[in-house]
Amino acid sequence: MTNARATRERIRSKGLATREEIVARALNIAALEGLGALSIGGLAKELKMSKSGLFVHFGSKENLEKAVIEHARTLFFDQILIPIDHAGLEGIERLWALCDHWLTFVEKSALPGGYFFTGAFFQCAGRDGPVSAQITEVVREWFNTLKHAVDEARGNDELSPSVDAARTALELNGTLIGAQWSHLLEGKDRTRARSAIVSKLGSLATDKIPAGAFDSVKAWRKYLGSKHD
Amino acid sequence: MTNARATRERIRSKGLATREEIVARALNIAALEGLGALSIGGLAKELKMSKSGLFVHFGSKENLEKAVIEHARTLFFDQILIPIDHAGLEGIERLWALCDHWLTFVEKSALPGGYFFTGAFFQCAGRDGPVSAQITEVVREWFNTLKHAVDEARGNDELSPSVDAARTALELNGTLIGAQWSHLLEGKDRTRARSAIVSKLGSLATDKIPAGAFDSVKAWRKYLGSKHD
Repeated sequence: MTNARATRERIRSKGLATREEIVARALNIAALEGLGALSIGGLAKELKMSKSGLFVHFGSKENLEKAVIEHARTLFFDQILIPIDHAGLEGIERLWALCDHWLTFVEKSALPGGYFFTGAFFQCAGRDGPVSAQITEVVREWFNTLKHAVDEARGNDELSPSVDAARTALELNGTLIGAQWSHLLEGKDRTRARSAIVSKLGSLATDKIPAGAFDSVKAWRKYLGSKHD
Repeated sequence: MTNARATRERIRSKGLATREEIVARALNIAALEGLGALSIGGLAKELKMSKSGLFVHFGSKENLEKAVIEHARTLFFDQILIPIDHAGLEGIERLWALCDHWLTFVEKSALPGGYFFTGAFFQCAGRDGPVSAQITEVVREWFNTLKHAVDEARGNDELSPSVDAARTALELNGTLIGAQWSHLLEGKDRTRARSAIVSKLGSLATDKIPAGAFDSVKAWRKYLGSKHD
């Protein structure tokens, strides 16, 4: 490698590192104060960069917002889906794991602030434009992931043939969001959401799964563990 | 009234009208783009006022945010509670009306944007400070209103003595928020939320209320109508 080329590479990889650093910092702000609170000027000040130095990375506030949402999306799906895919979970077990990991993601505060996507979705859904569309796309991707898992569980004869996949996915998601609201307000009762999810699954399951498996979260985890013994 | 006093009154009432106008415009922005997007400079530009002219009304961005949240709170409780109190509704009927009017409030888009308080609450709950505290206070006020109605319905022997008021209020609220999420994503199914509320009430009710009353939203409204005949 020539010296000139090595220098270019160093500059390029320095540039990439800085871009990641900017996006991570911007997500921190957006998750705590909303995407509307992001400004290239404010961010430059905080990162002790020049506005033009920051501008070079994104070109516009809209591109910065786009990069922030994409970064949040990656964090969200990586932490929820990768372990599930890695373990090869399917059907009702996959559906349960999606809900369980969603709760864990929120509990670990993997994104700062209340809950970035729920907050941003409720806030921007009445608005037109690319940022709102991008947020809605991530929410829809999550909804479709849940819906497909319901479909699969029904196909596996674990959920009753009469189960409506879209409706069930919406209801499970409603339980997750409601639980998060309760937790933010009351600051307790993290277990209640998982009990509600297990009860819901139990109410829709076929007799392929022993009824006692849905008696409690503990019983459910024990049943799932026994399947893998 | 002296001329000087009349002029002062005119100026004062002009000042008040302007303050209301500013707050209404600021709520519009906050409901669409988040409280974080509010800035005295941006608002002054939009209202064709000087920054100092606007500053005179609020003194700080924090006071502007405070006034915006208070205005949103008034809109919310006025539209939900005043008709219920006016009609003198009590117990399970009051509980139902709270949920029903909450949905109507969202459906009529009485506040622009997805849903101001839900969005703001999810967004700011992880944050300290007076704005976050004020938002949480409004959400808690709503939760307590629901909880007291559950308590009253249980006291009236309309809901089972074993009903946990806080848990039931959280579950009803979860259904409302989940329904709003579904509506924003799917753009349909406004009736599903009311069916879910009626089913939930039916599952907790005593036999003081005929079981058929909970068969559908229509049956429920008919039952309530017959009580007032």
